[in-house]
Amino acid sequence: MKYDLVTFGETMIRLSPPNFQRLEQTTSLDVNVGGAELNVAVAAQRLGLRCAYVTRLTDNPLGRMIANKAREHGVDTSHIVWTKEDRVGLYFVEFGASPRASSVLYDRANSAMAKIRPGEVPWDELLKETKAFHTTGITPALSPSAAEATKEAVRKAKEHGVLVSIDLNYRARLWSQEEARRVMTELVAQAEILITTEEDAERVFGVKEGAFEKVAERLNQMFPNLRVVAITIRETPSVWRNTWTALAYTKGEIIKGPVFDIEIVDRVGAGDSFAGGFLYGYLTKDVEAGLQYGVALSALKQTNPGDLVWATKEECERILAGAGLRIVR
Amino acid sequence: MKYDLVTFGETMIRLSPPNFQRLEQTTSLDVNVGGAELNVAVAAQRLGLRCAYVTRLTDNPLGRMIANKAREHGVDTSHIVWTKEDRVGLYFVEFGASPRASSVLYDRANSAMAKIRPGEVPWDELLKETKAFHTTGITPALSPSAAEATKEAVRKAKEHGVLVSIDLNYRARLWSQEEARRVMTELVAQAEILITTEEDAERVFGVKEGAFEKVAERLNQMFPNLRVVAITIRETPSVWRNTWTALAYTKGEIIKGPVFDIEIVDRVGAGDSFAGGFLYGYLTKDVEAGLQYGVALSALKQTNPGDLVWATKEECERILAGAGLRIVR
Amino acid sequence: MKYDLVTFGETMIRLSPPNFQRLEQTTSLDVNVGGAELNVAVAAQRLGLRCAYVTRLTDNPLGRMIANKAREHGVDTSHIVWTKEDRVGLYFVEFGASPRASSVLYDRANSAMAKIRPGEVPWDELLKETKAFHTTGITPALSPSAAEATKEAVRKAKEHGVLVSIDLNYRARLWSQEEARRVMTELVAQAEILITTEEDAERVFGVKEGAFEKVAERLNQMFPNLRVVAITIRETPSVWRNTWTALAYTKGEIIKGPVFDIEIVDRVGAGDSFAGGFLYGYLTKDVEAGLQYGVALSALKQTNPGDLVWATKEECERILAGAGLRIVR
Amino acid sequence: MKYDLVTFGETMIRLSPPNFQRLEQTTSLDVNVGGAELNVAVAAQRLGLRCAYVTRLTDNPLGRMIANKAREHGVDTSHIVWTKEDRVGLYFVEFGASPRASSVLYDRANSAMAKIRPGEVPWDELLKETKAFHTTGITPALSPSAAEATKEAVRKAKEHGVLVSIDLNYRARLWSQEEARRVMTELVAQAEILITTEEDAERVFGVKEGAFEKVAERLNQMFPNLRVVAITIRETPSVWRNTWTALAYTKGEIIKGPVFDIEIVDRVGAGDSFAGGFLYGYLTKDVEAGLQYGVALSALKQTNPGDLVWATKEECERILAGAGLRIVR
Amino acid sequence: MKYDLVTFGETMIRLSPPNFQRLEQTTSLDVNVGGAELNVAVAAQRLGLRCAYVTRLTDNPLGRMIANKAREHGVDTSHIVWTKEDRVGLYFVEFGASPRASSVLYDRANSAMAKIRPGEVPWDELLKETKAFHTTGITPALSPSAAEATKEAVRKAKEHGVLVSIDLNYRARLWSQEEARRVMTELVAQAEILITTEEDAERVFGVKEGAFEKVAERLNQMFPNLRVVAITIRETPSVWRNTWTALAYTKGEIIKGPVFDIEIVDRVGAGDSFAGGFLYGYLTKDVEAGLQYGVALSALKQTNPGDLVWATKEECERILAGAGLRIVR
Amino acid sequence: MKYDLVTFGETMIRLSPPNFQRLEQTTSLDVNVGGAELNVAVAAQRLGLRCAYVTRLTDNPLGRMIANKAREHGVDTSHIVWTKEDRVGLYFVEFGASPRASSVLYDRANSAMAKIRPGEVPWDELLKETKAFHTTGITPALSPSAAEATKEAVRKAKEHGVLVSIDLNYRARLWSQEEARRVMTELVAQAEILITTEEDAERVFGVKEGAFEKVAERLNQMFPNLRVVAITIRETPSVWRNTWTALAYTKGEIIKGPVFDIEIVDRVGAGDSFAGGFLYGYLTKDVEAGLQYGVALSALKQTNPGDLVWATKEECERILAGAGLRIVR
Repeated sequence: MKYDLVTFGETMIRLSPPNFQRLEQTTSLDVNVGGAELNVAVAAQRLGLRCAYVTRLTDNPLGRMIANKAREHGVDTSHIVWTKEDRVGLYFVEFGASPRASSVLYDRANSAMAKIRPGEVPWDELLKETKAFHTTGITPALSPSAAEATKEAVRKAKEHGVLVSIDLNYRARLWSQEEARRVMTELVAQAEILITTEEDAERVFGVKEGAFEKVAERLNQMFPNLRVVAITIRETPSVWRNTWTALAYTKGEIIKGPVFDIEIVDRVGAGDSFAGGFLYGYLTKDVEAGLQYGVALSALKQTNPGDLVWATKEECERILAGAGLRIVR
Repeated sequence: MKYDLVTFGETMIRLSPPNFQRLEQTTSLDVNVGGAELNVAVAAQRLGLRCAYVTRLTDNPLGRMIANKAREHGVDTSHIVWTKEDRVGLYFVEFGASPRASSVLYDRANSAMAKIRPGEVPWDELLKETKAFHTTGITPALSPSAAEATKEAVRKAKEHGVLVSIDLNYRARLWSQEEARRVMTELVAQAEILITTEEDAERVFGVKEGAFEKVAERLNQMFPNLRVVAITIRETPSVWRNTWTALAYTKGEIIKGPVFDIEIVDRVGAGDSFAGGFLYGYLTKDVEAGLQYGVALSALKQTNPGDLVWATKEECERILAGAGLRIVR
Repeated sequence: MKYDLVTFGETMIRLSPPNFQRLEQTTSLDVNVGGAELNVAVAAQRLGLRCAYVTRLTDNPLGRMIANKAREHGVDTSHIVWTKEDRVGLYFVEFGASPRASSVLYDRANSAMAKIRPGEVPWDELLKETKAFHTTGITPALSPSAAEATKEAVRKAKEHGVLVSIDLNYRARLWSQEEARRVMTELVAQAEILITTEEDAERVFGVKEGAFEKVAERLNQMFPNLRVVAITIRETPSVWRNTWTALAYTKGEIIKGPVFDIEIVDRVGAGDSFAGGFLYGYLTKDVEAGLQYGVALSALKQTNPGDLVWATKEECERILAGAGLRIVR
Repeated sequence: MKYDLVTFGETMIRLSPPNFQRLEQTTSLDVNVGGAELNVAVAAQRLGLRCAYVTRLTDNPLGRMIANKAREHGVDTSHIVWTKEDRVGLYFVEFGASPRASSVLYDRANSAMAKIRPGEVPWDELLKETKAFHTTGITPALSPSAAEATKEAVRKAKEHGVLVSIDLNYRARLWSQEEARRVMTELVAQAEILITTEEDAERVFGVKEGAFEKVAERLNQMFPNLRVVAITIRETPSVWRNTWTALAYTKGEIIKGPVFDIEIVDRVGAGDSFAGGFLYGYLTKDVEAGLQYGVALSALKQTNPGDLVWATKEECERILAGAGLRIVR
Repeated sequence: MKYDLVTFGETMIRLSPPNFQRLEQTTSLDVNVGGAELNVAVAAQRLGLRCAYVTRLTDNPLGRMIANKAREHGVDTSHIVWTKEDRVGLYFVEFGASPRASSVLYDRANSAMAKIRPGEVPWDELLKETKAFHTTGITPALSPSAAEATKEAVRKAKEHGVLVSIDLNYRARLWSQEEARRVMTELVAQAEILITTEEDAERVFGVKEGAFEKVAERLNQMFPNLRVVAITIRETPSVWRNTWTALAYTKGEIIKGPVFDIEIVDRVGAGDSFAGGFLYGYLTKDVEAGLQYGVALSALKQTNPGDLVWATKEECERILAGAGLRIVR
Repeated sequence: MKYDLVTFGETMIRLSPPNFQRLEQTTSLDVNVGGAELNVAVAAQRLGLRCAYVTRLTDNPLGRMIANKAREHGVDTSHIVWTKEDRVGLYFVEFGASPRASSVLYDRANSAMAKIRPGEVPWDELLKETKAFHTTGITPALSPSAAEATKEAVRKAKEHGVLVSIDLNYRARLWSQEEARRVMTELVAQAEILITTEEDAERVFGVKEGAFEKVAERLNQMFPNLRVVAITIRETPSVWRNTWTALAYTKGEIIKGPVFDIEIVDRVGAGDSFAGGFLYGYLTKDVEAGLQYGVALSALKQTNPGDLVWATKEECERILAGAGLRIVR
């Protein structure tokens, strides 16, 4: 096996005003790259998995920046599909403060990845050397052809016996709940792992059970093929102070992850680094390890700017072991 | 009517060290413009009123910057009085963190606006097309001639049947409580709307009734000409975390505004954006709407840097409707 | 007359890496707004014309930023067409150093302005109070419907007896030379003023006469309706050091503008501030004054960052009078 | 007496990524200088003591920067030992957010100060005009020769009747607990003042008494020569929100300092500014004054970036008098 | 002798937009301190003289910043006159690019130094331990009382046998040529050293001899008490590229300094660092050494931002010895 | 073959003050990574070679940053030797302006790479899949054990038939000319390609022939094993404006590269990107192509900040084809 994990989706250039400025007032923008599936690959790679990231990118400085950043974190980019056409998607993040929530303005229409079509990625060659495949509900939402390309990828993964992991990640700006339900039902029905929030479970599959445990159980009932349903749980007493945890339903039982109080520096990408950490723990050990690494890594991610996580496995283990908040010298 | 609201007062260049640096240690200063009456005009304009701002400015890059920023927000600047003499006032803001309060160092003496004299503004021409006029206790405090110019403006407003709104805004560095009482009594006696804090009511009019409701009622007793007395209320458990609300006494009853927990990015100008929001709500609907828009807009203002508010009417309505603190995508 | 000048075209958000960084390597982007026709309006307004700017903008923070900046410079924005649809165009500027030229990466497809259609702007109401109208070859190149909207605007200007000024401004990324020739021939045939560079004259109208004077003369022969043909002339011995001037052909004779050695801070928008300065001089005096103000203002523009010029009329006159390079105290 | 206080130890260049970035991701570093004993001298000097700082520095821009910053705060640098050899020590600070603690990466081996040897500082000349001498457990930990140089300094101080103050400041990266105990026992046995935290008391002297009061008392029992044992006390419910106080054991009784809730901007150097403030209060008045100024000054220090404190004596007195958190105008 | 050099004059906070921005467009300002006489003291101190700087400052963060920066460079500040009144002067610098010269906007009226009066500085105590005294034509121009205070200082210097050095430094915004001539004649008549430019010699003393050598000779004829007349000479083919040198007339002969081509980073303060370097060379050796150090130090000054010079004596000697422009490793 | 090129040497964290500040005055440092052999690998990789970089790094954030940046550019880092010991080397760059040359302050002693020993790199495994190997005179200069490790690497390369390329790169701070001559003679005697400057040829091998052509010829006479001797040639009329070219002596004849006028943004790493470009051209075509790509790529490198080059092959070809300096749109 050459790759422990292959992820598939869109990465955008992320532009955010510094110092809590409103986008309308700013005179400079911080530049990062971000996209759910790249975020997952980076998270998993940092903990030790060998990851490849597949997307379609325009060959210009912005497209190269995205591939560069993937490689910077050690993620393999050799299967990215390059084109001279189309554009690189962008999104703008405004960081909030209570009572103003943070917000995202997308400018991603007509991106190279939105225009991907089945047949462009040599999946057979790639997946025959791959242990697990991960994508999210954003990828098929990008466009009808991207939906077809996503179905192709999942089908190929199944053909090659690759474990399939899916994060629901519903994006209301990209498609309706009905469209999402139709496509995601087909995809989740082929997956071993489903990661979601309570809100997305309701919006995509209409699951509104109240307790998080019940949501997870219900999802597994709907998709008995799933070996694990993991749910991330955030409480937001304020914009800058959240609590963060996750639980998983697996083989008929609930396993709970650790709980962290978080001083939010940048929460974008938290769910993705949970997924990356979870896949690391799950693939190298078990569901409980998945929850431990997933929650710890994504808690740490929320303390650094950018979608991508810069923490180490050792740092995860330190906070899991109850390290305090004094200066580490 | 060409203008819904005309405001009159001084705007300064505001210089503040970034990143919680002390002024004494900084090597750069963020540049903004700020002044109570411009802040009010900008706030009201953003919600939809047609506003003009009147001041006296030195014709140099700093003076032009102030007019530019007013126009940037849509505020009419065609009645600003320009001079080749005098200087543009400045003030320095140091942002604090508990137990160090934020602080302001003024350098505004001898500014163009402090040297304004009656007769310099063509009030008749302007006010005959104006619905409401707003000024604060800072303007007459700038100098004896500025006090005369303020009295002239208020008198002209009354002559033209323009609604007069006054924010007490006591500045101990500019004048004594006795001087303030003498002048403000004359001005408030001609106003329909009085906006203040409990502290300023005590310092200027000696009102110390304890409960905010009583303060407002007492002020109305002192000035029966007032249709509304609005009081903004801030609790400061820490520098970065406040609660914020307002109430109004009108026609013998108390109306309460919404309450917001605020993570403070920059609280300077909060009271002014309350006034601007209040005037919008009051002029387009009623006192209750005034409180709603006033408190919401000024809560949002405290989450962006600078004296001026960059929020939208839609954002006010979203938080008034109880929007949560999750990322808006 | 309410407006001396109305301009019509697209403005984009301009993003540029600081400190000569390559776009691929940057971690922040400076934010400006820029677009040929807004640049012209700002330039003319700063010298004293009363200008309005017409475009179509998406009502989001980026669209509002563009309108804000126009107003900041005093340009009237009340005729901007707002939409909830589409997007705001972007472009990225990389500043070069010899032997690397500066470069621009456009991301403007499907912008609100590219989707403008005839009938959206109330031209009759606006132009009946207008002295001159200016657009460039970029506006009709944005899309077929934008070309129709541009034709409509020029036709309406002629109907209302408004002077029409056109800058050829050929953009190879937007349309072919053949398309440009076809449309621009129709537009220039209705104009009084044509502004261009030698290169664009060749690319759009096939004029390759060698000497600049001959190019101007030839263009006037092709379009005898033109009262003035102005050509801007740049020599680029290096990226940071250029010489800059312009000449005009009018009534059968050549008039030359002043020549400036320029230390380049940011040359983007130079031609536009020439046009704005030229229109100021021409409308208030004559062709020679047009060249004087046009060249001086655009020379000064190249010494400040951003597409927009921040110089004053007094500064133009100072360098036209031969002011030296010592510190002005 | 020329000097109220002389301090002796190493100062490093401190490099820290801005905006909560991880060191691994940053593209710029904020530059400060910091070192326990310089921090103390600066703190005491700001309150009014006349202080000199002794260290050994490489004569290059980094070494000069350290001396410059000492002088900037008024601290005398005329006894610094300059060398053309060796290097200036560095350290990197990553600012954290819960659940990630802030952390420090030292790169201080082989610095000029680590290579100091006895006999290099003209202690007799300096200390004969000095009232008090302060050093910390870091100085002797730098190297065996630095330990000898520290012993020499303390011995000379005793010979000249100079009051000796020591902050335990245990650094696990520099020496073992055994080594620390051996050397610090010898040094503390000559001191009048000992400042420490509960943790360091346990790590260096094995004191684990539970209550802070008991720790202080036990230390005085171990070292009956001490006139004061002061302990700083921090609670860290989160990284950005701490409570901070101190107590002292003197002449058989416990005196408690004021308690402050602190919104942390930069807690590095807090203990040092306590020591500086304590020495100011103690030398000019008594132990209680020492606790008052020490806690207040170090509370304020934690609200500005950098190791060094920029608060004033007047600001200490204001928060000690219970000043609120409203804007100081 | 405790001091080799005492300088007397005003220092202001200097605020300048970064990156060639116009002041009107900037959103941040770089903060430096600058004033002719402090600049001289810093320059001389860096080369090795022991310098003290005398001024009058308001005791607030801005005033303290000025004293801090003087001390940072080793300049003694113990004779600064502190007041709770008045304000700290400011000035704004816009950096230019051809054909736009750099420019300065002063905001210094009513500063603490402008309000100095004779009798406030204990000159006797200070000057009895001083070798040389330096001031410039700016100090007496600040106000009539400052002129009296300057006369007092020069008179006291003469009484104590202190060498008096004066830089003409004419400031047209502060006084007329007539006023300057009257006061400066009185002051220069008591000086041993006069430093000036050709322009100032003409504006203050009406000397227009053409050749620089003749100007210097003529000044010495006018003031036979002068031992040296030094003239700095700048050619400005462009804003970013100047040539720089100086010459001196002494004992009937002309001595020429070295000539440097300079790539201008920041030319403000060049003349002052020449004066500081000249005084170093003159006081430690002779006029020729003065010209060497003066020109070299001031050439280096123009390559770093800020009024103050950060070069070393060794760097001066390196460029005087003809060091090339390759990287120094 | 898996790798076209393997390079071996040290990379440091590079810290440089922004905006031409002196290191002594700066409050922030720009962070880059740089080291001759990494610079070469990045340059060659960007043009299309498959490169691996070998070094020894401390496993901390700084060490990881170096590996990250190599990967960001696509360079393989899988053979880096990681250690928990030692430190990451640093260097500080001050950018100059005439007459002040840029300068470098190294702080690299005791780095992980300086402590490398023979036997730590699995050369056999790596080099058996490698076409060319490159190192410079810096690597053996780091320490005696590094010299042994370098000899081992070159010996292994020869054993595996790998082409050996060496850049003399003499560093006077690291070793004497005698030491350099002894070791470099042994290494160059095994190389096919030697890259150098005239200065280094003289300092290391005592070659002082005057004309560059003669120097190259003489070096080939000394080392007849060399197939190519390439010399880079820089003229420095000023710090910001250089001319840059190279020539090669091969098979008895001189081939000259193109000449570029360069506006210097950052010249550090120019020689290295020449080497990378040369190796690309030479390995894919011939010596002439090597000179073309080498000079063009390194000319472009000098126009972006940082040691590493961010240009593309297409950009090289564009300037080689004579592209002008107008904006590329």
